[in-house]
Amino acid sequence: MNRGFPEAEFEARTKRAQALMAKHNLGALLLTTEADVRYFTGFLTRFWESPTRVWFVVLPASGKPIAVIPSIGAALMAQTWVDDIRTWRAPSYTDDGVGLLGDTLNEVVGAGRIGVPSGLESHLRMPLADWARLTGGLLGKITDDAQIVSTLRAVKSDAEIGKIAEACNIAARSFARVPEIAQSGVAISQVFRDFQRLALDEGADWVPYLAGGAGPGGYADVISPAHDAPLCAGEVLMLDTGLVRDGYFCDFDRNFSIGPATPDAADAHARLIDAVDAAADIARPGATAADLFHAMDGIVTGGAGGSDTGRLGHGLGMQLTEGLSLIPQDTTPLVPGMVITLEPGIETSEGRMLVHEENIVITDSVPRFLSPRAGPDMVQI
Amino acid sequence: MNRGFPEAEFEARTKRAQALMAKHNLGALLLTTEADVRYFTGFLTRFWESPTRVWFVVLPASGKPIAVIPSIGAALMAQTWVDDIRTWRAPSYTDDGVGLLGDTLNEVVGAGRIGVPSGLESHLRMPLADWARLTGGLLGKITDDAQIVSTLRAVKSDAEIGKIAEACNIAARSFARVPEIAQSGVAISQVFRDFQRLALDEGADWVPYLAGGAGPGGYADVISPAHDAPLCAGEVLMLDTGLVRDGYFCDFDRNFSIGPATPDAADAHARLIDAVDAAADIARPGATAADLFHAMDGIVTGGAGGSDTGRLGHGLGMQLTEGLSLIPQDTTPLVPGMVITLEPGIETSEGRMLVHEENIVITDSVPRFLSPRAGPDMVQI
Repeated sequence: MNRGFPEAEFEARTKRAQALMAKHNLGALLLTTEADVRYFTGFLTRFWESPTRVWFVVLPASGKPIAVIPSIGAALMAQTWVDDIRTWRAPSYTDDGVGLLGDTLNEVVGAGRIGVPSGLESHLRMPLADWARLTGGLLGKITDDAQIVSTLRAVKSDAEIGKIAEACNIAARSFARVPEIAQSGVAISQVFRDFQRLALDEGADWVPYLAGGAGPGGYADVISPAHDAPLCAGEVLMLDTGLVRDGYFCDFDRNFSIGPATPDAADAHARLIDAVDAAADIARPGATAADLFHAMDGIVTGGAGGSDTGRLGHGLGMQLTEGLSLIPQDTTPLVPGMVITLEPGIETSEGRMLVHEENIVITDSVPRFLSPRAGPDMVQI
Repeated sequence: MNRGFPEAEFEARTKRAQALMAKHNLGALLLTTEADVRYFTGFLTRFWESPTRVWFVVLPASGKPIAVIPSIGAALMAQTWVDDIRTWRAPSYTDDGVGLLGDTLNEVVGAGRIGVPSGLESHLRMPLADWARLTGGLLGKITDDAQIVSTLRAVKSDAEIGKIAEACNIAARSFARVPEIAQSGVAISQVFRDFQRLALDEGADWVPYLAGGAGPGGYADVISPAHDAPLCAGEVLMLDTGLVRDGYFCDFDRNFSIGPATPDAADAHARLIDAVDAAADIARPGATAADLFHAMDGIVTGGAGGSDTGRLGHGLGMQLTEGLSLIPQDTTPLVPGMVITLEPGIETSEGRMLVHEENIVITDSVPRFLSPRAGPDMVQI
């Protein structure tokens, strides 16, 4: 099994970040979230599930990242390419790493500025009270990161694409086995549990995300937890998974017809596939996220400008969703190496919908499907 | 199956918060994280896995919470007890809910102050740039929440304890089946995958956390991801899970000896159980978190004051870890309804350790074990 990355991967990420930092006059980046810390270090653990401990990485203007972390993580961080690992025993009620982090930043940045991810999709994973204490000692030095981290993360290396493709393959094998677990009369909550078991059986490391729905000719909602109502003939079952393999996500769904599909549902599904095709046809370097939105929206709403779900796809990679959004406002040009989802939805009746999703990677020419491209006909169970 | 809570549960939580808000002179609370939003509303979805959308709840000085959320969540929020649901189509690059949230806060709080969770274990789940924009329009009104939310969440209702107990029972049944999946020669990564499958099979909704380790007479680390080395005779395998049932976690572990245990490992395990017993013996109302720490530390280190792992237990509930820490600094008095883990660790040789963990609830008299209390002898596989 191919786990982790060679050191050259992290070196390249770091050098690219530092080139942008120089351009934006930043003396350091301060990173606090799981994905940002892992992107520059390779530090992979499920321990972030606990909110108790904070984890910091300081990326200097040159050289390797510096880890400022609780001592419980020192052994694992020492297995990465990072050499400079500074620790304290956390949690500490007197100083939970703030002093150590402040000293490290001041040492690294001198009179320069410190970039902190501050834009859409970012957050600061540390208590506000500690943030106030930290910035009090770094007066005027804190600024945003000029989107450096999100810009870098949006374009994947071949090694990263390989990991996302592997996650997609695991999900594809799991979806192929759905007829084993979903039949008329089975509760959707049971299907949800069993689908996660299939995903693990097929090689997922873990299954952070599973959503879906079921209903006659479409479902009402795609973010609710599964309920205990049994599947019935004439319903459409949708399962949408973000499973993880070696720290990278897939994110696509499949629709299944319980018994023969109603003509309306069958037609809606075929139009969703048409919409995906229309977006894939133009998903070349230079096209924008908005272009893909409009290509799909023209088919699913006749060009009405979308719906309350807000977008028809997004980037993915180290997180279930990251980077660009397929919305009219997003004029980000596509670049080879971007991995995105095409996720059109269509209203089938008042308050009911179908959603279909595929994962593609932008190349120099036609996009490559990482999920196995579905045909117009729903799988019937 | 017993899902969710009656409305009275949320009403009681809200009233308790509002009583404390009055005491601390707060006109509103602003909540941004999954657990805090769910605590007051019942809004349960795995959709938080996506970092794209922000979700806000404003708790006024009286009346029900107000949801300020992306329109994609409106249908699910409408199923909760919340009546006032304000939405925008997210993500929006011009105003991603900041204007709507600012208007709502100003409407609710008037000239009063707004409490935001700011202490240990908290973070603000919104972009810093949007936070700056929001607070710019609320000049001087933002303050911390006086630990109101964490204080309330630390003491569980009977209904909450029932859900944690159910999660513990599912984990207990899963641990009992470990001999089905773990034998000498099987890769630990396979055991990790299979254990998650067992947990789902036994009724987990999902498995957000699984950690562990294996090694001769002890393991080096409890936060690393599973590797592909096969289990060998003489090794101790530890699995530590935080699985979720209806939004509530268990968090305990079990150690298994692959073949007969070495005398050192057997002795270390027995001492861990002694340490748990010592803590359980004094875990009554009025004892402090620090008291429990010292009771265990006296046995596992001879009173050296702990190790780099930093604590010997913690609260749990809606999150894998939450609330108090069993460390010398934590003088929080125990209160009936607190659910905590007892998690002593012991060094078995240079760089190797054993860790044992149980879950208990504090009552008026002796604590109740929610995990099935392990005996001194490790299960042998």
